[in-house]
Amino acid sequence: MDGLPTLQGLLKQLQRVPYLASKNLYRVANHFLSMTPEQLEQFCRQVREAHERLIKCPRCCAWQEQTGNCQFCSSPKRDHRLICVVETWYDLHTLEKSGGYTGEYHVLGGALSPLDGIGAEDLSIDRLLRRIDGSCNEIILAMNQTPEGEATAALVARALRNKSIKITCLARGVPVGGTLEYMDRLTVCKALLERRDF
Amino acid sequence: MDGLPTLQGLLKQLQRVPYLASKNLYRVANHFLSMTPEQLEQFCRQVREAHERLIKCPRCCAWQEQTGNCQFCSSPKRDHRLICVVETWYDLHTLEKSGGYTGEYHVLGGALSPLDGIGAEDLSIDRLLRRIDGSCNEIILAMNQTPEGEATAALVARALRNKSIKITCLARGVPVGGTLEYMDRLTVCKALLERRDF
Repeated sequence: MDGLPTLQGLLKQLQRVPYLASKNLYRVANHFLSMTPEQLEQFCRQVREAHERLIKCPRCCAWQEQTGNCQFCSSPKRDHRLICVVETWYDLHTLEKSGGYTGEYHVLGGALSPLDGIGAEDLSIDRLLRRIDGSCNEIILAMNQTPEGEATAALVARALRNKSIKITCLARGVPVGGTLEYMDRLTVCKALLERRDF
Repeated sequence: MDGLPTLQGLLKQLQRVPYLASKNLYRVANHFLSMTPEQLEQFCRQVREAHERLIKCPRCCAWQEQTGNCQFCSSPKRDHRLICVVETWYDLHTLEKSGGYTGEYHVLGGALSPLDGIGAEDLSIDRLLRRIDGSCNEIILAMNQTPEGEATAALVARALRNKSIKITCLARGVPVGGTLEYMDRLTVCKALLERRDF
């Protein structure tokens, strides 16, 4: 759409939003253009409000309300002996939704990725080391099963080697509901190698 | 994430954006929260600017700059004897990207859908009838091949029956690159029935 500079500006902004496929950009642009002025104001206000009011917890790096306490670090309901280290805040949310975890979290802020310029210094490993005290007795490494995630897990494990603390990681294997026939070779290998007592 | 009302507000706003799957909402929220204040301001400014400056062309109902002319209706490069009727502005864009069309457009603003409460009066059919004059000699109905799209095409064709104007519609059949084996039965039927000279 040449000759529509305002539209180009809008599309450029929307292009930066993750998970918006470029083939859907025009549809999303149409959504914003078709809003009432009040709806648009409300959208902008709420995004801006969230941006102002949510800060990263200085301890676990998850988003928290500026005026309150971190819902993970401060909750008396959670098990403070466990810290689950995740790459990102949305990984944290996935674990949280599973309902299978009630310990604390630590958000690294990404995974090692030399091609993207993300090195050890960009991850909150120092902060993880500082927060570990006598009350914590297990660190769960819950990085993704990708080359970047595995490199990051190795790095964190190495940083923790002087702390006398148990380090575990997520189980690998056939997903629940998965059939062997459609699993890739590596997953089957790992499921065999890391088999458990029935 | 109970206890984070500001985050809930942000998520609620993002939920309304089309093509954002709910499983990606937290990732998109993280994108907005991780912006610099300048980036966020720029985002809000550009969305608001687009909302203010882009209006629907009173003739063809496509978005146009408020200060300029419609790039389709006013362009001397386009064939003003042809009007292609589409359901939505993003359908228009799909046709435009194909590079196979240089005529005018008419955006209906949706398709008949009783379940969604969209009736004939919600579509810009009156406006289509008013704009047809001696210079136009063909109307192409380019609705989607869905029940809603076909009902809409029938409605538009009926509204046009008193105008002595040629009405055509898009060809149906096997997509380019498609193999017969994987086509559904109806597509194969239509491709046979509506076969063309080789």
